[in-house]
Amino acid sequence: MKFATLANGTPDGRLHLVSRDLTRAIPAEAAATLQALIEDWDNLAPSLQAQYDALNTGGGVAFDPASALAPLPRAWQWLDGSAYASHGELMAKVFGIDNHADKTRPLMYQGLSDQFLAPTADVALPTEDDGIDFEGEFGVICDAVPMGTDTAQAAGHIRLVVQINDWSLRTVAPIEMRTGFGWVQAKPACSMAPVAVTPDELGASWRDARVDLPLIVDWNGERFGAASGYDMAFGFDQLVAHAARTRRLVAGTVIGSGTVSNDNYREVGSSCIAERRGIEMLDHGAAKTAFMTFGETVRMECRAADGTPMFGAIDQRVVKG
Amino acid sequence: MKFATLANGTPDGRLHLVSRDLTRAIPAEAAATLQALIEDWDNLAPSLQAQYDALNTGGGVAFDPASALAPLPRAWQWLDGSAYASHGELMAKVFGIDNHADKTRPLMYQGLSDQFLAPTADVALPTEDDGIDFEGEFGVICDAVPMGTDTAQAAGHIRLVVQINDWSLRTVAPIEMRTGFGWVQAKPACSMAPVAVTPDELGASWRDARVDLPLIVDWNGERFGAASGYDMAFGFDQLVAHAARTRRLVAGTVIGSGTVSNDNYREVGSSCIAERRGIEMLDHGAAKTAFMTFGETVRMECRAADGTPMFGAIDQRVVKG
Repeated sequence: MKFATLANGTPDGRLHLVSRDLTRAIPAEAAATLQALIEDWDNLAPSLQAQYDALNTGGGVAFDPASALAPLPRAWQWLDGSAYASHGELMAKVFGIDNHADKTRPLMYQGLSDQFLAPTADVALPTEDDGIDFEGEFGVICDAVPMGTDTAQAAGHIRLVVQINDWSLRTVAPIEMRTGFGWVQAKPACSMAPVAVTPDELGASWRDARVDLPLIVDWNGERFGAASGYDMAFGFDQLVAHAARTRRLVAGTVIGSGTVSNDNYREVGSSCIAERRGIEMLDHGAAKTAFMTFGETVRMECRAADGTPMFGAIDQRVVKG
Repeated sequence: MKFATLANGTPDGRLHLVSRDLTRAIPAEAAATLQALIEDWDNLAPSLQAQYDALNTGGGVAFDPASALAPLPRAWQWLDGSAYASHGELMAKVFGIDNHADKTRPLMYQGLSDQFLAPTADVALPTEDDGIDFEGEFGVICDAVPMGTDTAQAAGHIRLVVQINDWSLRTVAPIEMRTGFGWVQAKPACSMAPVAVTPDELGASWRDARVDLPLIVDWNGERFGAASGYDMAFGFDQLVAHAARTRRLVAGTVIGSGTVSNDNYREVGSSCIAERRGIEMLDHGAAKTAFMTFGETVRMECRAADGTPMFGAIDQRVVKG
C-alpha cells in the first residue's frame, strides 16, 4: 500500500491511499490519519488493502504532491541513526572524532518529531551562517514496539518505509557534538517525501530490512548524488531493536537511516553537502563546496528499479525564517 | 492555578484543577486536557482562573495523587537542560570531559516525550546492570514559541512549572556521550510530579525564571538531597530561547533544568546518585554508593517556604521490565 496525507486544516491532515504509480488518490476509509492507522494496524490494514487494490484498477482523483503534507505530519518520536559506515568513517577521519570506534552499536540521536515538513514546503531557517545542509535518507514507521524487542521481532513492527530530508546546520553541529548531549539547534525539523509505502511495495528492493535502491539527490537542479540505500551497517530491524532496548516505542515512532552513503562516494556522489566537503578535504586539503544559501533548492527522489515512482519527491527551497 | 491530570482510560487523561493545598480537585471546565489548554492558553485561562479561585473556597472532591497521571502524560517535545554548574563541573572533573568549557551556551539534549510516567507508577527497566539512577529536577511547559524568540520574550511563554524525575542509565550514558549523538538508551521515560503550577503559585520563589525552593529527595526513605532549584547558570527563559533559536517550539514543549545541584553539595546533598558518586570519587578516590536495584524507591517533593505542598510528590519504585 501507498499512503499520503493531504492538507485539510488539521495538524494531522487526512490520510489517503495513493495508486502505485502515484497518479491518483482516495481518502482512506478505515483510518482518518496515519497515526490512527499505525495505532491499530492489524485491524485496519486488511480493508485498506482491499481499497488500495481497487484504486489501482481505477477511481480516485488526481494525486497532487503539492497538496501533500508529510505522510506523518507529526510523530511522538523520531530517532535517527547514522548507519552508513562510509559516511561515518569519512566524517570521523576528517573531523578527528572517534565516534565510529565501536562497530557493535548503531549511532542514533533523538530528534524533534512534533513537525515533519511537507515535501514541497519552503524551509525557513534563521541564518545562512549556520551552514545549511540537507541529508537524504530513508526511514521506517513502526507500530507499538515493546521494550526489549529483539532484531527478529523488530522486523515485524516495521509497517511503513519513508524518505526523509534531515535538515542539518553544520556550523552548530560540532559545537553541540562536543558536549556529548547531541543536537538541538543543529537539527531543525526534517521533511518527508509525500508517500509512505508498505515494505512489500519495494519488492526485492526491500532486502535485509534495507532499501536497495538509489536515492537521487539534485541540488539546484544539478545531480549531486545517487547512492544506494542498501549499504547500512545496521538494518532498520537492528535500529528498531537498538532503540527499544530500554524503552517501549510508541506506535508511529519514526526511525531514520542517517544520510545515505556508499563506499564509492566519489563515483555515486553524496546525500549531504558535508560529505562532499569531507571528500574535498581529504583530496585537496580544504573544502570548496559551500553550504546552502537562501533561495537554493534540493530535490530528492527514489524510484523502483523499473522506474515506478516510490515515495514521490522532496523538492524544497530554503528561505530566511 | 494548579493542575493535575487524572486517569480516564485515554492517553491524555482528564485535566483537573487542584486546590492550592492539593486536597481537592475538580474537572477543568474550559479544557479537557492539558495539551488542549496549552494550545489555547490565553483564551482558556481566565475562566479556569475563576474556577480555580472558587475551588480554593470549597467544593470539588478529594484529590488522590495515586490516581494522577503526569500532568502532561505525553508531550510533542521534551528538551532537557543541564543548567546547574556545580553538577556539570563536578561531572566534567570526575569523568574528564570538557563539555562545560563553553559557559555561554546551555547544555541541552532532546529526550523521549511520548510518555511521562505517572508520579506513583512503578518504573520498569530492563536490567540493574545499566546503572539505574534518578535525576530530580524542575521543568516548564511552554505555549507555542516562534523560532528566534529572545530571552525576554521567552519568559512570557512559560505557562506552567513542573517537577520531574529524569530517569538515567549511567552505565550506558558515557558510551552514548562519546558518540556526540546524545542519549537514547541511557534516557528512558521521565516521571512528573502530579501537579503543574502557574509561575504565580510560586510567589517570590519564582525568581529570575528559576524555582527558588529546595527539592527534597529521599532514597529508600532516607534523605538524599535538599538542593535549591535556584542555582541554574541559565534561567528557564534562557533555556527556552536557546531551544527556539533554529526551530519553533510546539505548544506543550517541556523544558527541563537538569538535575538540581548546589555548590555546597556536600552539605545539601544531591538530586542524583551519579553526583554523590562523583563526590566520593573526588574525596575518596572511588565511588562507594551503588546505583538502584529493583524494588528500591525514590521520593521527590518540593514545598513552598511556608510548607504548602507545591507539585505533590514523585514516589516511585523501580522494577524489572
